[in-house]
Amino acid sequence: MKFERCKYNPIIKASNFIPCNDKLKVLLSFNPGVTTYKGDVVLIARVAVLAKENKENTIGVPIYNPNTGDIDIKEFDKKDSSCDFSDPRLIRRGNDLYLTTLSYFALLTSKDGIHFKIKNKAFMIGDNDYESFGIEDPRITKINDYYYINYSGVSKDGICTMLARTKDFESVEKLGPIFMPDNKDVVIFPKKINKKYVAISRPESAYFKKPNMWMSYSKDLLSWGEHRIFLRLRENHFDSSRLGASCVPFVVKEGWLLIYHGATKNNVYTLGACLLDKNDPSIVLKRTKEPIMVPLTDYERNGFMPNVVFSCGCIKKGNNLYIYYGACDESICLASTKISNILDLLNNEEQCEK
Amino acid sequence: MKFERCKYNPIIKASNFIPCNDKLKVLLSFNPGVTTYKGDVVLIARVAVLAKENKENTIGVPIYNPNTGDIDIKEFDKKDSSCDFSDPRLIRRGNDLYLTTLSYFALLTSKDGIHFKIKNKAFMIGDNDYESFGIEDPRITKINDYYYINYSGVSKDGICTMLARTKDFESVEKLGPIFMPDNKDVVIFPKKINKKYVAISRPESAYFKKPNMWMSYSKDLLSWGEHRIFLRLRENHFDSSRLGASCVPFVVKEGWLLIYHGATKNNVYTLGACLLDKNDPSIVLKRTKEPIMVPLTDYERNGFMPNVVFSCGCIKKGNNLYIYYGACDESICLASTKISNILDLLNNEEQCEK
Repeated sequence: MKFERCKYNPIIKASNFIPCNDKLKVLLSFNPGVTTYKGDVVLIARVAVLAKENKENTIGVPIYNPNTGDIDIKEFDKKDSSCDFSDPRLIRRGNDLYLTTLSYFALLTSKDGIHFKIKNKAFMIGDNDYESFGIEDPRITKINDYYYINYSGVSKDGICTMLARTKDFESVEKLGPIFMPDNKDVVIFPKKINKKYVAISRPESAYFKKPNMWMSYSKDLLSWGEHRIFLRLRENHFDSSRLGASCVPFVVKEGWLLIYHGATKNNVYTLGACLLDKNDPSIVLKRTKEPIMVPLTDYERNGFMPNVVFSCGCIKKGNNLYIYYGACDESICLASTKISNILDLLNNEEQCEK
Repeated sequence: MKFERCKYNPIIKASNFIPCNDKLKVLLSFNPGVTTYKGDVVLIARVAVLAKENKENTIGVPIYNPNTGDIDIKEFDKKDSSCDFSDPRLIRRGNDLYLTTLSYFALLTSKDGIHFKIKNKAFMIGDNDYESFGIEDPRITKINDYYYINYSGVSKDGICTMLARTKDFESVEKLGPIFMPDNKDVVIFPKKINKKYVAISRPESAYFKKPNMWMSYSKDLLSWGEHRIFLRLRENHFDSSRLGASCVPFVVKEGWLLIYHGATKNNVYTLGACLLDKNDPSIVLKRTKEPIMVPLTDYERNGFMPNVVFSCGCIKKGNNLYIYYGACDESICLASTKISNILDLLNNEEQCEK
């Protein structure tokens, strides 16, 4: 199974952006949502910022303040032994957790899907209690006239799944939390199945620490029910420690093709695929034993979070699949393959399991 | 603020029950849901069981097996240093968590609300993937002809909120998960407010470890949305470490009266009260600074989990409020007070905050 990397990778980097606020600098840009609009490829890119200037031996974490509407800088002393800085994404102090960066979304468009222009450097920004530590990892699903954007809202209260929608990528209507903490890696199917909208989500148990993928159903995209687990972690596989939906599923002859991500204990993030029943997508027909895409290149293996390929969206053109993905939680890359390659793998009994 | 303890406390004990299965013995009975039906007081009591016989130095944990429909006994060696037995409720082994007991529900009825008969020793039992470690802490809300029973379904996949309903306390219809893991301490309001059903829940963030109380809305009791936080932990208060809804809220002149529980870091569980806006119960009008009921008696202070009073339901008769509660996660007790006593406290500015 081969994904051809775009020769211009990374196609988007932090250095392409100016920050949304002059207190900040852009450190990373990754994990974009992707769709097409009026013939253009549209990316909603996660942009991660930190304080522009730091006092010696301090880290300045930007946090949105819902009371003032400003971004405050919270300073941490790098020598403070009560703080755990071991994960580059997080700062733990006792029972308190902070993110090292604040993320928001920029809007980019492209004619060729490779060379992008920034249309709006701050298309969406966390601006409420549920988003004060930032907004992350958008997925875009077109349903009728609307592009629905779901994303993680992070705050001291946890990680919610938030929903928003736009018709024109000019104005965005935020619709609030659709799944309570902690729940992320949500994708919404592009059409109703048996008269209901369907979403995949990945709630996380505080006690049992075994995240599974769930399917939920809705009549209006706002209230969700009929929750059920449909995909679990697998021991000794690429998805032994974590897993979650990556791309919005799309229909192929055999069912719904879902590209998802898995991670091992060592935080190696890869992509896998599964085939879901066309009429009841909570039935998993096939699932790859091995990942379909793994970190291989220098920009996928060395960076802010080493050994990470993580996708929030793809584009289908005939038999070609273009995956946009974050490499090392640092930059945005593009890789392509034939959909038939994935289906061949899913149709090969030795390569699959249920 | 005084709650008068029933002189027959504990009114129900483990020794009142015979187990639902001859491999098991009853260790505890606590945290009952409560309602009235045909003039009787009805309790749905949590009954916690463990293996009847254990080999020397082993603990036998009962687990429902969804594949066989049987209850299996999983044995743990008390000397196994990879296991953490420090919490009497839990066994941790690496990333795996087990409960020391399996809970199910017995049905009891009473004419006087004090002396109860067991009508069904196994009224509801965990019998699916989401309930394999047991079912816990029911709350009962009467809506039209149905008594809705929500409860925690516990399994290796986490703690879900499950919904069921009955018209007659003979047959029960299970309706499946309504909130994904981890989410417990759910109460459903007894009537629609602004044309929607309203529920309080307590999701728990795996990362941020700050459980809050949320309010959610539904048209059909099955799909829930419009989630919002309405009550948070308070530092240096009785609800500094954990909190959650206890009793189904009821209307008083000034709004909805909600009795909830709080816990400190030391796992002292007490009851507090708050007053919610009649038309928008996500607006907290008042909240007691101090608990309204604390562990005082021997049976509330010494037992399986010391210093716990935990209620899942109460009954209102005129100005009298009868609280049924679990004492020390071990037995079922009854205490009463005047509703006007709670309202006096909530109307005393020095005793309250928003």
